[in-house]
Amino acid sequence: MDRFSSALFTDFYELTMAQGYFLQGMGEKRAAFEYFFRSSPCGSGFVVFAGLQPLLGALQDLGFQKEEIDYLRSTGKFREEFLGYLSKLRFYLDIYAPEEGKVVFPHEPIIRVEGPLLQVQLVETLVLNYINFQSLIATKAARVVLAAWPDPVLDFGLRRAHGPNGGLFASRSAYIGGCAATSNVQAGKEFSIPVSGTMAHSWVMGFADELSAFRAYAKVYPENPILLVDTYDTLKSGLPNALRVFKEMRERGLNFRPGIRLDSGDLYELSLKALKMLRAEGFENPLIVASGDLDEYKIEGLKKKGASINAWGVGTRLLTSADCPYLSGVYKLAAIKEGDTWKPRIKLSSDPAKVSLPGRCNLWRTVKAPMYAGDYVTLAEEEPESPTDGNLIPLLSLKMREGEPLYQESLEKIRQRVREEISKLPEGVKKLRNPEKYPVRYSKKLIALKKELMKNGKN
Amino acid sequence: MDRFSSALFTDFYELTMAQGYFLQGMGEKRAAFEYFFRSSPCGSGFVVFAGLQPLLGALQDLGFQKEEIDYLRSTGKFREEFLGYLSKLRFYLDIYAPEEGKVVFPHEPIIRVEGPLLQVQLVETLVLNYINFQSLIATKAARVVLAAWPDPVLDFGLRRAHGPNGGLFASRSAYIGGCAATSNVQAGKEFSIPVSGTMAHSWVMGFADELSAFRAYAKVYPENPILLVDTYDTLKSGLPNALRVFKEMRERGLNFRPGIRLDSGDLYELSLKALKMLRAEGFENPLIVASGDLDEYKIEGLKKKGASINAWGVGTRLLTSADCPYLSGVYKLAAIKEGDTWKPRIKLSSDPAKVSLPGRCNLWRTVKAPMYAGDYVTLAEEEPESPTDGNLIPLLSLKMREGEPLYQESLEKIRQRVREEISKLPEGVKKLRNPEKYPVRYSKKLIALKKELMKNGKN
Repeated sequence: MDRFSSALFTDFYELTMAQGYFLQGMGEKRAAFEYFFRSSPCGSGFVVFAGLQPLLGALQDLGFQKEEIDYLRSTGKFREEFLGYLSKLRFYLDIYAPEEGKVVFPHEPIIRVEGPLLQVQLVETLVLNYINFQSLIATKAARVVLAAWPDPVLDFGLRRAHGPNGGLFASRSAYIGGCAATSNVQAGKEFSIPVSGTMAHSWVMGFADELSAFRAYAKVYPENPILLVDTYDTLKSGLPNALRVFKEMRERGLNFRPGIRLDSGDLYELSLKALKMLRAEGFENPLIVASGDLDEYKIEGLKKKGASINAWGVGTRLLTSADCPYLSGVYKLAAIKEGDTWKPRIKLSSDPAKVSLPGRCNLWRTVKAPMYAGDYVTLAEEEPESPTDGNLIPLLSLKMREGEPLYQESLEKIRQRVREEISKLPEGVKKLRNPEKYPVRYSKKLIALKKELMKNGKN
Repeated sequence: MDRFSSALFTDFYELTMAQGYFLQGMGEKRAAFEYFFRSSPCGSGFVVFAGLQPLLGALQDLGFQKEEIDYLRSTGKFREEFLGYLSKLRFYLDIYAPEEGKVVFPHEPIIRVEGPLLQVQLVETLVLNYINFQSLIATKAARVVLAAWPDPVLDFGLRRAHGPNGGLFASRSAYIGGCAATSNVQAGKEFSIPVSGTMAHSWVMGFADELSAFRAYAKVYPENPILLVDTYDTLKSGLPNALRVFKEMRERGLNFRPGIRLDSGDLYELSLKALKMLRAEGFENPLIVASGDLDEYKIEGLKKKGASINAWGVGTRLLTSADCPYLSGVYKLAAIKEGDTWKPRIKLSSDPAKVSLPGRCNLWRTVKAPMYAGDYVTLAEEEPESPTDGNLIPLLSLKMREGEPLYQESLEKIRQRVREEISKLPEGVKKLRNPEKYPVRYSKKLIALKKELMKNGKN
C-alpha cells in the first residue's frame, strides 16, 4: 500500500486551506473533526463500519515526497515557506472510532479526528474515501448475506469494480460483511480471504463440444466439479452432459460432491429441474450455485419461492453496491481549542437535517442483553448514567495516538463481529425493505448546545 | 502502477481454467477473445471508450512473482508443473482496439485479444476491470459536460470514489470525458490534469466569524477568491460577507474576478439573487460555481430554467456514475485456431440478445462528412465496400503486438477526440434521455455464420 501513503491523496482545497491556516498562524491550533453520515445506503436499517485498519495504515506513513512537493510548486499556488513546511510534515493525529464491524447509524459521531487544524484538514479526503466506500460495501455484503442465510455468498465482482484497488478493498469489505469467499485472487493473497471459482463459458467453448469440456474439467478437478451448464442450453445440453460426467466419475469410484452453476435463465425453474434430474440419478445433495445479476432482493425472492439453490455468486451488484453506489459520509469541524477550552463549532443549513452536531461528541450503546436497544450521543466530557434495565457501553475508543495505530484485528474477528452485531439488532431493523428506525438519542446538554449555537452561531 | 502488474489481479477461475488448459495441452492454442457490451450505462446513446493506455501498461509488465506463486501453491489447487510454468510466464498478446476517446456502441466487437489460449484467458478480469470502469466514467463525464456546455465541469468526487485507485482512474476518465479540472491532487500529478479547489465549510468554521474567514482567504488568494457562502445562511450572511470582502479588495485596487460557490439550497433561486446582489455592487461578471449532488439531469434542468451559474462542481454522482455504476462489458471466446484455420465459437442463450458474435470480427464506421452515419461489423477477413455517399473507416487497429504497446497518446489529445467524436454524432443520439439508437449493421457473412452456428453450435 506504500504508494497510497502519499499525502497528495487529497482534494486540492485541503491544500489551499492548509496553506491558508499556515499563513494565518492557525495551522497548529488543536481541532476536532467528526465523521458521520446523514442517511444509510440502500435504505438499510444499519451500516457496517469498515475501512478503519486500512485507513490507519495509510495515515501512519502519510507524507510528501520531494517529487510531490515539486509537483505542488508547479501549480503556482503555494509559497516556498509552506512547501518547506509540508516537505517535513509528519502527521500525529489522535483518532477515536469503533472497531471495524460494529453497526452504526445516521447522525452519529462515528470517528473523531483530533490534532493540529492543518493536519486534521489535510486528511479529510483520505478518511472519507476509505470509510465511505468500505463501509458501503461491507453494508451491502451484510444485506446480501442476510438474504442468502444460511447459504454461502461468493464475491464475484472484480470485473465490474471501480478500478483495481477499488476491487481489492471491496473484496476485503465484502468478506467483512459475511461473504464466504472471493474470486479476487489478489485480495485472497493480501487479506487471507478464501478464494473460489471454477470455469467460465470460455472453458466450455474452448473444447470441441460441451461434454469434452466437462470431462476435461472433472479430470483436472475431480474433487470439485462445479460445471457451468448454460453455455448452449441448460436443460437440453448442459444438465444432461453434466449428469453423464458425474455418473462416469461415480463409476470410477471417485469421492466427490457434484456441483453445477446456473448463470442465466429462470433460476427458480432451472434449479428445481436441475435438482430433480440430479436426484433421479441418485445425486441426493448436489451443490447448485446461482449467479448472474443477483442482489439481496433477487436472492430473497428466489429463496421465498423455494428455489433449490445452495450457494450464491454475487458480483456487479455487490461490489459496486449497484442500487446505491455511495455512502455520503461527511467530515465536519466540531470544535477548536482556544487556550485550554474546546470551542464548539456548528454548520448551519436551511435543512435541519443538515445542521451538524456541535462540539466533540461521544457515542454510547444501550445493551439490554443480549440485544441492542438504541444509541446515545453525548458531549465528550459527559459521563452518562446507565439505564436501570440495561448497560451503556462506549463505542468510541482511541484507535490512533499521535499518529501511531493502536488497533489491529484479524479479518476473521471483524467478520465474526459483524455477525454478532447484526444478531443483536431488533428484527425490524434488519429488514431489507422499509426497516424500522434504530433509536438514536441525544443528551440534553448536546441538544441545548446545538440550540444555542443555532441561535447565535451565524457568526 | 507497478503493484498492479501482478497477474494475481484476476478471478480465481481464470487460474483454474489456465491450469486445465495447461494440463490438457491446450494452453498454446491460438485464441481470439472479444470485448463488447450489450447495453449502454444510464441509457446513454453512446459510450466513450477509455482505459486502454492504462490497460496496456498493466499488461506489459504482467507476471507472477515468487511470493505470488507461493500464495497459489498455498491454495492447494495447483500442481507444481503448472506453478513452474506460471513463474516463467511472459505475456505476448496482440490487441486490436480503437483509440481511447472514440465513441462505441452496444453489440460491437470493441477489443480483440489474440494469443495463446491460456494467456488470453488469464487477462480477462484485467481487461474487463480497466475498460468497464474507465469507459463508464468517461461516458458519464461526457454526458455531464454535454449538459453543462459551454460551462466548465469540475470533478470533485474523490471522497466518494470506490477506493484510492478507483479515484485515480476515475479522475483520468472524467478528464477524458471533458471535465475541465479535478480536485484529485494525485490524479493531477500522475496525469497532468489541471487541479482546482478553494475552501470547505471547515475553513469558514475555523475562524471566529464568516467575515474573518473570507477576509483571510482573500488575503492569501487575492487572484482567485471563490468564497463558499452557505456555511451559515447564504442570503443573510454568506453573500453580504462575500460582497463586503470583494468591495474591500476593489478598494485596495486588486485585479480579480469575484467568485462564490453555492453548495446547498435552491441553486436556481440563489444563483439569480447572488448575481443580482453582485451586479448591484458593480461586479458584472462574477464566477458562480454550483455544487452539491449534481448530475447531468440536474444541470440540464438548472440551465433550462436559466440559472445564473457558470461553473459546475460535480462529485459523487459523476465519479461513482451514481444512477448506473457499472458498464456490463463482457469478454467472450470468438475463435480458436486449429492448424491454419480460425474456428469460430459462439455462446448461445435463450435470450437472443445474449448470443455472442462468432468468429474474429472487425468494426467499421460510415462517415458522411462531417457526420457519423452508422457502424458496420464484419468478419475480420472481410474487406467491405465503401458506400457511394460516404467513407468506411476501420475502427480497430493493432494497439499491442506480442506484448509490446503500440499506442500512446496524451490525455489532451484523447480529450479533444471525445469532443470531436460527439460533435459527429446525430443530435438525437446525444440526447440525455431516450436517445435515438445509433445504427449498427452486420455483414451478410457474419449473420450467416451466426445462424449456422446457432443451428449446429450446441456441440
